Amino acid sequence: MDSEPTAARPNAVPPSDFARVRRLGKRGAYDRETIDAILDAAPFCHVGHVVRGRPVVIPTLHWRAGDTVLFHGNAASRMLETGAAGGEVCLTASLLDGFVLARTGFHHSANYRSAMVFGVPVAVTEPEAKLAALAGFTERLFPGRWATLRPPTAQELKATLVLSLPLTEASAKLRRGGPIDEPEDLDWPVWAGVVPVRLSVDPPVPEPGLAPDLTPPDPPRWLR
Amino acid sequence: MDSEPTAARPNAVPPSDFARVRRLGKRGAYDRETIDAILDAAPFCHVGHVVRGRPVVIPTLHWRAGDTVLFHGNAASRMLETGAAGGEVCLTASLLDGFVLARTGFHHSANYRSAMVFGVPVAVTEPEAKLAALAGFTERLFPGRWATLRPPTAQELKATLVLSLPLTEASAKLRRGGPIDEPEDLDWPVWAGVVPVRLSVDPPVPEPGLAPDLTPPDPPRWLR
Repeated sequence: MDSEPTAARPNAVPPSDFARVRRLGKRGAYDRETIDAILDAAPFCHVGHVVRGRPVVIPTLHWRAGDTVLFHGNAASRMLETGAAGGEVCLTASLLDGFVLARTGFHHSANYRSAMVFGVPVAVTEPEAKLAALAGFTERLFPGRWATLRPPTAQELKATLVLSLPLTEASAKLRRGGPIDEPEDLDWPVWAGVVPVRLSVDPPVPEPGLAPDLTPPDPPRWLR
Repeated sequence: MDSEPTAARPNAVPPSDFARVRRLGKRGAYDRETIDAILDAAPFCHVGHVVRGRPVVIPTLHWRAGDTVLFHGNAASRMLETGAAGGEVCLTASLLDGFVLARTGFHHSANYRSAMVFGVPVAVTEPEAKLAALAGFTERLFPGRWATLRPPTAQELKATLVLSLPLTEASAKLRRGGPIDEPEDLDWPVWAGVVPVRLSVDPPVPEPGLAPDLTPPDPPRWLR
């Protein structure tokens, strides 16, 4: 319910009327640096599309490559099956950063970073482009792993659906900092502050029977 | 890309044709126990709605109360402003549980739990019901905290928008377990297994000047 001003930055992506943050506009940001950082930090996203006039929101893995955000075919499958392919999507990637505990319920809030990308995704069909896209996906999470894998067959590559969405209509929204209480509430005798939340990793679990000399990859650097 | 069969359970929520999981149907689940557990474990969700024919997906905080899932007004504000209020939403709450690392790119996957709820949300307007809803929201994260807060004023209560969505059309989808590689790939010399991911909390950060005898609440039990 509260906010603190978002630092103004040069707009690399001028917001369309549609992408403009409607509520708490001072939390909005439209610069590519902010949008890219959120897309890169979020390991997965939610893709919304419209099926026979109804909204459908599906989680999927995404990754950014320059001026496009790529995402995996599981979200696309439903789109294809329902005839929604070719239609517009809203891809939203969000990270919860903390629970903001105020002295009254009304000023409780959450710290978060969220990026929204609007557009019509296009399937990456050219084999070399698709290969590069998939390599980029693995490398963004586990650098160096792609070259160590059994290379994909032509059939596997064909069976993998990768969609590409240009970063032309996008916005970010975020909240940082502690609660913003009413001045007269500051002495209310209850703990107030932020409980930070983040994604973290636990020790890797090897497959049964794995050769003991094979070592697990380092976890993505932002999850350590 | 892989899956393992989801345990069959009695269907408390018969899936509509629309809510039925389209892809990898064996990952689908429709029982309320599974759906409720995911909604209760996810601290936030993504709400999709349709604005002038275009999908819009917004992150927001949600909480379940019996047979309804409640969510906060920030998602609703845009719906109200754009005239989408009264329309259908798709509320999807997802938890990433791990990166699944196979011997080839094609069989890499993610472990996750995701619940989707379809329906037309209704604003909770009756003051006592709204008060109970907000108390439930705080209590689900920080049990015992609501009673310690400065009680909301009538004006604060009025300014808070809570939407309620019945759990009548819902489904869950999840993946668990290790990678499912081709038998001929099992000896490929690369580490394979699962890198578990979870939401975790860091030590609470008190507000500056907070009385030192005030102690922070325990973090939500599933985030410790």
